[in-house]
Amino acid sequence: MRVTHYTNVPPETVEQGAEGVLIREVITRADGAPSFSMRVFDLEPGGHTPQHDHPWEHQVFILEGRGTVWSESEGDIPLAPGDTVLVMPGERHQFRSAGEGVFRFICLIPNLEDRA
Amino acid sequence: MRVTHYTNVPPETVEQGAEGVLIREVITRADGAPSFSMRVFDLEPGGHTPQHDHPWEHQVFILEGRGTVWSESEGDIPLAPGDTVLVMPGERHQFRSAGEGVFRFICLIPNLEDRA
Repeated sequence: MRVTHYTNVPPETVEQGAEGVLIREVITRADGAPSFSMRVFDLEPGGHTPQHDHPWEHQVFILEGRGTVWSESEGDIPLAPGDTVLVMPGERHQFRSAGEGVFRFICLIPNLEDRA
Repeated sequence: MRVTHYTNVPPETVEQGAEGVLIREVITRADGAPSFSMRVFDLEPGGHTPQHDHPWEHQVFILEGRGTVWSESEGDIPLAPGDTVLVMPGERHQFRSAGEGVFRFICLIPNLEDRA
């Protein structure tokens, strides 16, 4: 068993099309997680993840702040704490901050062999 | 893409060794989730999950309240909002409420064929 507060994991900056995004890789393969990984994202005001797609899904739970998630099929959907998002494999998507404080969410992904 | 507030999912009572536990199956196979599932647990004051083990892992993020997680190897570890827990496959464990309000956490599990 491994117990840790998510803030004990040092944040890293996300590059490659993102702006104002910090990521904490809270539970990963390196911790022995067999199937999937947990990350916590902090988006600054005005921050956004890349507009991209990939062959794996996201499961997201909004912790704090306001934002949106965009997908090609559905456009922008507003997000607030307690909202959850399932992004399907191959679905083009982008998360954007929409408030004046941090926009924070948990984002889980499968541990695929070919995931970057 | 599927966006929903976790409280839009009706809570169900957990039986079988649990007490004062409500579970919301927020993202599951039925929603098309390929690899893993997201549930939100509410433990009432005095509530607890069963003391059990199973061949799949848990990934937990504490949202609200106070509680503990017990494992055979490490005993009781206190939990507060922002704490994360990785319970390994086969590890005997139990979550307990330790506060006067609700003890709420997200708990994710893989979508194994043989999972109940």
